[in-house]
Amino acid sequence: ELVTLSSDFFADKYLQDQHWVITAGPTREAIDPVRYISNYSSGKMGYAIAHAALRAGAKVTLISGPVNISAPRGCELIEVTSAEQMYQQALTYAPQGTTFIACAAVADYRVADIAKEKIKKDNEHMQLSLVKNQDIVADVAKLANKPFIVGFAAETQNIAHYARGKLKRKNLDLIAANDVAKAGQGFNSDDNALTLYSAFDEIEIPLANKQVIATKLVSLINQHYLAKSTKP
Amino acid sequence: ELVTLSSDFFADKYLQDQHWVITAGPTREAIDPVRYISNYSSGKMGYAIAHAALRAGAKVTLISGPVNISAPRGCELIEVTSAEQMYQQALTYAPQGTTFIACAAVADYRVADIAKEKIKKDNEHMQLSLVKNQDIVADVAKLANKPFIVGFAAETQNIAHYARGKLKRKNLDLIAANDVAKAGQGFNSDDNALTLYSAFDEIEIPLANKQVIATKLVSLINQHYLAKSTKP
Repeated sequence: ELVTLSSDFFADKYLQDQHWVITAGPTREAIDPVRYISNYSSGKMGYAIAHAALRAGAKVTLISGPVNISAPRGCELIEVTSAEQMYQQALTYAPQGTTFIACAAVADYRVADIAKEKIKKDNEHMQLSLVKNQDIVADVAKLANKPFIVGFAAETQNIAHYARGKLKRKNLDLIAANDVAKAGQGFNSDDNALTLYSAFDEIEIPLANKQVIATKLVSLINQHYLAKSTKP
Repeated sequence: ELVTLSSDFFADKYLQDQHWVITAGPTREAIDPVRYISNYSSGKMGYAIAHAALRAGAKVTLISGPVNISAPRGCELIEVTSAEQMYQQALTYAPQGTTFIACAAVADYRVADIAKEKIKKDNEHMQLSLVKNQDIVADVAKLANKPFIVGFAAETQNIAHYARGKLKRKNLDLIAANDVAKAGQGFNSDDNALTLYSAFDEIEIPLANKQVIATKLVSLINQHYLAKSTKP
């Protein structure tokens, strides 16, 4: 703990004038009072980014879905459950930030009609009707007073293709893509490997502990942020 | 810790010739490589029963879905994810037990066709086709060499009606029913309140910590088990 304290203490506070708004973790979409749809996101990557941004001196607002890890000390933690709740909080806080990091694995679909009582298993088959949720990062990118925006793409195939498509279509500044089909990285793992895409470049961050990845990523995001801010 | 140790040490080992097979926690039914359907079960009740049975001297096999709590020391832990895996393990271990406790919140339905790649959100609407899973506790009750069987019913309405129906239809010895719609008990709570139904009686176990509930429940289950064993 002394080592952490010292390295925190001496870390360069290069983000001290910035406010990072970070979403993290999964969302849960209710089916009925006991069942839900979710995903394997542990929140570790988003929390590691929050920690690294705090260390670099940023003010951090962390909007988090249900996870089993503790928020880093010093951040403003906003807890949500559903994609709709995350949307509301993200659209509230993002305009206050200099940087918005959409690291949460937000459910793309919610259940069309949430049952008020537990659904009985009377039938051999059941159809669950889902409707698309609002796209948080795309709507943040439509704001007049939008911050610098970093999206995430967790893919299982054609990673570069989907990531570049998402970057352009949603009008993001950066997108961090990872292959969640690979064992030992991504969802629920302590390690990750990312490729960071901008309209101008592509940077590999090789497999490492999520804290190490986060430290590199925060620095790279800041470099792109500064490059954009100083452009004519 | 000394208090726990002492009370464990002096507890009456009234289950020392019994082997309890207990299922606990939720299951997760995959939708695609990143998404799944689950429920709010924390595993706390099943783990508390395992702990109480171990204290009373039983051999305990704990078949558990994904939870964030530690298994009690001394139990045989079998970890599973899906309802199908839990079914396989339960049908393997239950015949070896004197008592089978179906405390897990097993998914009633699984996704008909699990997507091999992450489903893209191309459409505004999506239909998820589900098919019914095999009924673990009902199939254990059909075994020739079946143990004494205790089911659970987590309901949000008409609790006594559903519990008594399940007891009879599935041919169980006992059923422990709780109202998961009530705040502060049941799913994900540290407290619970149960009603235990047999074909002959109905016993209320009022709201208390799950460890307290589990201690009472284990003793009541044993009383019913002994009554059944000594019947002509």
